[in-house]
Amino acid sequence: MKTLQRVASIKKIEQGNIVTPQGFKTAGVHAGLRYSKKDLGIILSDIPASVAAVYTQSVIQAAPLDVTKDSIQVEGKLQGIIVNSACANACTGKQGLKDAYEMRNLAASKFDLAPHYLAVASTGVIGEYMKMDKIKRGIELLEPSPADKDAIDFEQAILTTDTVTKNCAYSVEIDGVTVTMGGAAKGSGMIHPNMATMLGFITTDAAIESADLQLALSTITDQTFNQITVDGDTSTNDMVLVLANGKAGNQALSPTHPQWDTFIQLLKQTSESLAKQIAKDGEGATKLIECNVFGTESKHAAQIIAKTIIGSNLVKTAAYGADANWGRIIAAMGRSGIDFNPQQVTIAFGDLVVLEDGEPVDFSEEIAKAYLEQDLLVINVTLKEGSETGTAWGCDLTYDYVKINASYRS
Amino acid sequence: MKTLQRVASIKKIEQGNIVTPQGFKTAGVHAGLRYSKKDLGIILSDIPASVAAVYTQSVIQAAPLDVTKDSIQVEGKLQGIIVNSACANACTGKQGLKDAYEMRNLAASKFDLAPHYLAVASTGVIGEYMKMDKIKRGIELLEPSPADKDAIDFEQAILTTDTVTKNCAYSVEIDGVTVTMGGAAKGSGMIHPNMATMLGFITTDAAIESADLQLALSTITDQTFNQITVDGDTSTNDMVLVLANGKAGNQALSPTHPQWDTFIQLLKQTSESLAKQIAKDGEGATKLIECNVFGTESKHAAQIIAKTIIGSNLVKTAAYGADANWGRIIAAMGRSGIDFNPQQVTIAFGDLVVLEDGEPVDFSEEIAKAYLEQDLLVINVTLKEGSETGTAWGCDLTYDYVKINASYRS
Repeated sequence: MKTLQRVASIKKIEQGNIVTPQGFKTAGVHAGLRYSKKDLGIILSDIPASVAAVYTQSVIQAAPLDVTKDSIQVEGKLQGIIVNSACANACTGKQGLKDAYEMRNLAASKFDLAPHYLAVASTGVIGEYMKMDKIKRGIELLEPSPADKDAIDFEQAILTTDTVTKNCAYSVEIDGVTVTMGGAAKGSGMIHPNMATMLGFITTDAAIESADLQLALSTITDQTFNQITVDGDTSTNDMVLVLANGKAGNQALSPTHPQWDTFIQLLKQTSESLAKQIAKDGEGATKLIECNVFGTESKHAAQIIAKTIIGSNLVKTAAYGADANWGRIIAAMGRSGIDFNPQQVTIAFGDLVVLEDGEPVDFSEEIAKAYLEQDLLVINVTLKEGSETGTAWGCDLTYDYVKINASYRS
Repeated sequence: MKTLQRVASIKKIEQGNIVTPQGFKTAGVHAGLRYSKKDLGIILSDIPASVAAVYTQSVIQAAPLDVTKDSIQVEGKLQGIIVNSACANACTGKQGLKDAYEMRNLAASKFDLAPHYLAVASTGVIGEYMKMDKIKRGIELLEPSPADKDAIDFEQAILTTDTVTKNCAYSVEIDGVTVTMGGAAKGSGMIHPNMATMLGFITTDAAIESADLQLALSTITDQTFNQITVDGDTSTNDMVLVLANGKAGNQALSPTHPQWDTFIQLLKQTSESLAKQIAKDGEGATKLIECNVFGTESKHAAQIIAKTIIGSNLVKTAAYGADANWGRIIAAMGRSGIDFNPQQVTIAFGDLVVLEDGEPVDFSEEIAKAYLEQDLLVINVTLKEGSETGTAWGCDLTYDYVKINASYRS
């Protein structure tokens, strides 16, 4: 798979979201877990949908993940996802698990579904118990519809310290019919996926079996959700779920389908869009940082180097200060665990080369500063070890990151 | 070796430093690499000394490290260390290497030593060339003495963003004679050793061959210098050097010497003292954080967990905000790469238990906040996987860290 290639026929749908694909409804309400913001949402498919999931690789996994895995293993199908913010229901012991099952059952009862057709997701503070009376009341308030306004409500309901909602939608022709995919996500801090990174929900009307959908998701996760970092911390609640309800009417997709690569690109583009939106909205961030690494022996090496650079507090503070301090970039590379020849390293901010084949370049600080003051910073690193490439996304480290996290819980 | 045991007979020498052991001189001067602060220093032993060294494990190693390694490999002896701050002489290509050798030769000439008896160390900005005219003039100004005031000058000359000098000295009886050890260090940012962490210089009048001294240093490095982190970044210039000139007159130390463990403890206590001073003076830090992990299967596992907790930006910001957010501690543990049973984890701030066997404890927020507002925060984590222990040290993440690093280079 040529991973940096775009399939020209994939169309971005402006203002698209999780209900842009056929056969999905959603809602978001204020259940009272938070003072005034919306805090409970649901996505429903009209019919049971194929499902793919990836979860945090943390040893500590929150109760909702157990419940979701339990739901999926029954039939490999889901018809809905019930999500709350404010409380992560993580490290809450037996009571937490009981609460997560109860949340699933309450939603199943409200929407007349078998409980195992529902996934549960939570995000918020770790170690606090769910306020189940509020969850119960909130579920009663949910009135899902396919209207965009309800998708916006859902997107808002899943946020924590996020400052903006995250969404996207794309479509492409497969088997002569239009296949559409939409996404919603939340994530701002505790973002350093070894797998997922946050909550990510993707809907599509493509026809595809769950096993193939899982294969597709696993194929692109390492290049998208796993390549963003805000602060190096991996959440206990990370989860990405993809629902595919087949309403588009294409031939079922699988690796032998002639347009399998097209579908992979559709999923990759949707995932990358959500991942970048999350990185850009990192806690306290003022800019998105993209790091492209070229010329490594393996894709893995390029991805590790890119992510180590993006994750460096010193690179992140220099980005905030618009300081062309490339020494911190090569220092981060040096500790990435990947071996390379320092005398063959070239580093550029955008097109501005600052280190060439290991020797400092006498560049214009003025031009560098002007470039670094923009809200997108692209760091391009070239080695001469091979022909592979990799990209990672992150954000700068600012006073506001400290402010947000020195007082998050209270 | 019982690593947490202290040898009762080791005495701390108040106001002790690198010239407290017999037969060492030092000096620090303003060479002009910086506007007004001292920026060039030297340590000299009266006679060639046994030497042990550990270096950064970064793929990128600065020129002075190459020169130091080259010096040591000739005879395994050193008589002095010439050190500058302000410029790291890293990523400076062929010119940088030439400059580092020239710095060595100028010092050798001034003090009438064979060049291979001198080590070179640099710290400061990466990617800038050395101002050799200033180095040359500075070396001419160096007038080493065994006086404490010159040790203070040296300690100041090696600092970068550090706010305080770091020093210590201890003594112990070995073979009926007093063996003394002293240390000086710098390090404040780019501190996340995989080996060293910063510049650390230890002097002792103990008699010991270089190979045994290296064994001793390698034994304790993983429990001291390698267990501190300020910001997760590993420098290109990290180096710890130990010089032992034998002036104390003890029988040469080796693993078969009956007091070998005593010497190991002396070196460990000196190293731990310097390491903790560095962690406490982390860029922008307001407090030292110590994390003790008990009850793991291996010491390695305990050290990894402790260091992952100490390294978490979210734990560090919560510490700054005096927020008893233990969820961030267990989240960091979960991503440490060490497997454990979450239902057997107990977490305490000092003596205040907040999570017991995986279940949240209803603790007093007032008492927790009062504890967390102190300038030493001890996080105690207990697992029930085995009987090993490990400790790591770090500091909180504050507005000032961002301030310092958003404008360090300019």
